[in-house]
Amino acid sequence: MPRSKRRHLLREVPGGVAAPCGFEATGVRCGVKAGGLDLALIYTVAPAVAAGIFTTNRFQAAPVLVTKDRVGRDPVRGVVVNSGNANACTGPQGYRDAMQMAETAAEALGVPSRAVLVCSTGLVGRPLPMGKIGSGIKKAVVALGPDGGEKAAQAILTTDTRPKSVAVEFELDGRPVRVGGMAKGAGMIAPNMATMLAFLTTDADLSPGLLRSRLVAAANRSFHRITVDGDTSTNDTVLLLANRQAEAAKISPRHGLSRFDEALGFVATHLAHAIVRDGEGASRFIEVRVRGAASREDAVRIAKTIADSPLVKTALAGGDPNWGRILAAAGRAGVEFRPERVDLHLGGVQVVRAGAVCGYRARAARAAVTSPEVRIALDLNDGEQQAVMWTCDLTQEYVRINSEYHT
Amino acid sequence: MPRSKRRHLLREVPGGVAAPCGFEATGVRCGVKAGGLDLALIYTVAPAVAAGIFTTNRFQAAPVLVTKDRVGRDPVRGVVVNSGNANACTGPQGYRDAMQMAETAAEALGVPSRAVLVCSTGLVGRPLPMGKIGSGIKKAVVALGPDGGEKAAQAILTTDTRPKSVAVEFELDGRPVRVGGMAKGAGMIAPNMATMLAFLTTDADLSPGLLRSRLVAAANRSFHRITVDGDTSTNDTVLLLANRQAEAAKISPRHGLSRFDEALGFVATHLAHAIVRDGEGASRFIEVRVRGAASREDAVRIAKTIADSPLVKTALAGGDPNWGRILAAAGRAGVEFRPERVDLHLGGVQVVRAGAVCGYRARAARAAVTSPEVRIALDLNDGEQQAVMWTCDLTQEYVRINSEYHT
Repeated sequence: MPRSKRRHLLREVPGGVAAPCGFEATGVRCGVKAGGLDLALIYTVAPAVAAGIFTTNRFQAAPVLVTKDRVGRDPVRGVVVNSGNANACTGPQGYRDAMQMAETAAEALGVPSRAVLVCSTGLVGRPLPMGKIGSGIKKAVVALGPDGGEKAAQAILTTDTRPKSVAVEFELDGRPVRVGGMAKGAGMIAPNMATMLAFLTTDADLSPGLLRSRLVAAANRSFHRITVDGDTSTNDTVLLLANRQAEAAKISPRHGLSRFDEALGFVATHLAHAIVRDGEGASRFIEVRVRGAASREDAVRIAKTIADSPLVKTALAGGDPNWGRILAAAGRAGVEFRPERVDLHLGGVQVVRAGAVCGYRARAARAAVTSPEVRIALDLNDGEQQAVMWTCDLTQEYVRINSEYHT
Repeated sequence: MPRSKRRHLLREVPGGVAAPCGFEATGVRCGVKAGGLDLALIYTVAPAVAAGIFTTNRFQAAPVLVTKDRVGRDPVRGVVVNSGNANACTGPQGYRDAMQMAETAAEALGVPSRAVLVCSTGLVGRPLPMGKIGSGIKKAVVALGPDGGEKAAQAILTTDTRPKSVAVEFELDGRPVRVGGMAKGAGMIAPNMATMLAFLTTDADLSPGLLRSRLVAAANRSFHRITVDGDTSTNDTVLLLANRQAEAAKISPRHGLSRFDEALGFVATHLAHAIVRDGEGASRFIEVRVRGAASREDAVRIAKTIADSPLVKTALAGGDPNWGRILAAAGRAGVEFRPERVDLHLGGVQVVRAGAVCGYRARAARAAVTSPEVRIALDLNDGEQQAVMWTCDLTQEYVRINSEYHT
């Protein structure tokens, strides 16, 4: 949708996760991470309906197990998140610690124990320093406020270079409704959740079932469309809380749903793009669009194979319009298609026609891939389906960050 | 098999692809590549039976199409290979050029046109400079000799830093039988052929069907077990020629087959390991072994996911025993297993027991992953099957090489 059309429906507002009515947040330093804020708390004055999407990794961190068990069952009053320690691969003690972390927050907030969700991100395999976490939670409860969204977004970061936070407002029944969000993640990012945490909040009123279906739909167009390095983690979580504090009527498929979807989609896509733009060592944002596929699954598979190819990503780091590596990646995606029909555009420049290189101006092609935003469009001319993936280039800096990050 | 046991059966001999009786080879400079030898020729004095394995990429280069069509049908007298230009994505003209390249070699050698196989490797999408190729072939035919194996191994290289060549001899019926080989490849390497060329020669006498089955078996334990970056190319080819010039009797399942398999396996594995050791920017050779899987396919899938994980490979580049990234990669392989049963060893050091970190000496674990040969052993404790993959670490140098290599 063009930005101008979107604008009169959606308005960006400050405040991040605390922008929707009735939400408060904060970020404090408790000393788990080497420096900076490392414990975030989100609080809602009224019980919220919650929906969640979790890592598909076979190894799931203790806080994921605790939170999964609560989301969709119990009304939520708070989410406590620490960075610097993932509480993953920590065995039964890790599970007890995750339960305790939620319990401590619930007590301090004066809410039922099961009303607090918990997330962790950082190093794996180390016991959570419960003393530090406990004092941090107490500090956070005192610091909570409607203007704490930006601090919360700071406190969940690990290798990220900048916070990722956004909120929008739309009107329904003449009343403002808001959706806010924050996310962290810069490496170990792949579709179906990676080392990625995202927290979305809204003051809209939706049934639990509808909330869940909208979250899944929004994630399918945002968080599930990004990849930094194809790696996924043990801790990935996306949570959406709806506390019904806006004064508009309940949202239903007949009332306000498309506006809500648009707002949620804007926030989710904004955060997903922010993760890719902050990809470890990334110098360019890359969109890979595959058109003309026989099925959507085929299109996704090819787009993801291109977006994860180290050779494509290093070529783009070098500003090289290396269409041969793009075709080679498409060709190994395990999808049947006719190579002799394939067209490829880099930005506005057609470089491959009918499976073979076509005459193109080298300077124009180079300009298309040295831009900070590179668009790759592959057309299989073999069907009607399409898909998009967003990724970043693979630089020496990515390797430096990930080889110097020590366990 | 322990080296001592292998030794009394197999003896390494010099000569590479030209070591087996009746084979000659050479490498010359024809000017396609920026510098160095860039055209190799293998010749057999007597017609050879041939078997081949080719890229599974949907995009297949013109020489692959030409060679695939001939292997297994026509007796082979020669193989001509150029480096510097892959003759891929070059459309109908590329196909005509590949045919012409074979034709020119056949004429110069005085053999039937269909008796010559052709391979190319290098940049894609550029027309083959047929004038240079033609003069190179004529030069090569003059230079052919039984001592030209090393020069041929030089002439097929692209980003490789060193030639890969080996030959062995074993006895059958009191007579020597030899298997020789050479390979190229340093990046764009993944199972099922990547930008990898391998040429295997033998003076043994085998039926075409048996030759093919032995090549497939050997490749499954060597070339299909390596990955540098998960990328595959348009040109991958492994060829095995058997010219029956040894004086031993015909090899059959009842006569000499296990010795032949061992010799072929030694040559193929030696070359496969050499490719990984020469992986672009690699500083360590990494073996990933997955045991205790319910099926061999599961074991392969997990081993490959670990071996292709940028996070695992950058951790190893940094000499970090980051078992968390290894478990996370295993967990996203799409295989069902019980995380709480998993054990992990790095070298001789157990770092994970029953899915959780166990007490280990940090110095020992670090020593295990800072060695030039790193062994990762993951046991799922969930079955009897196992698989191994070989790879290398991912360094800043890999990114530098691949971002500076321009189309």
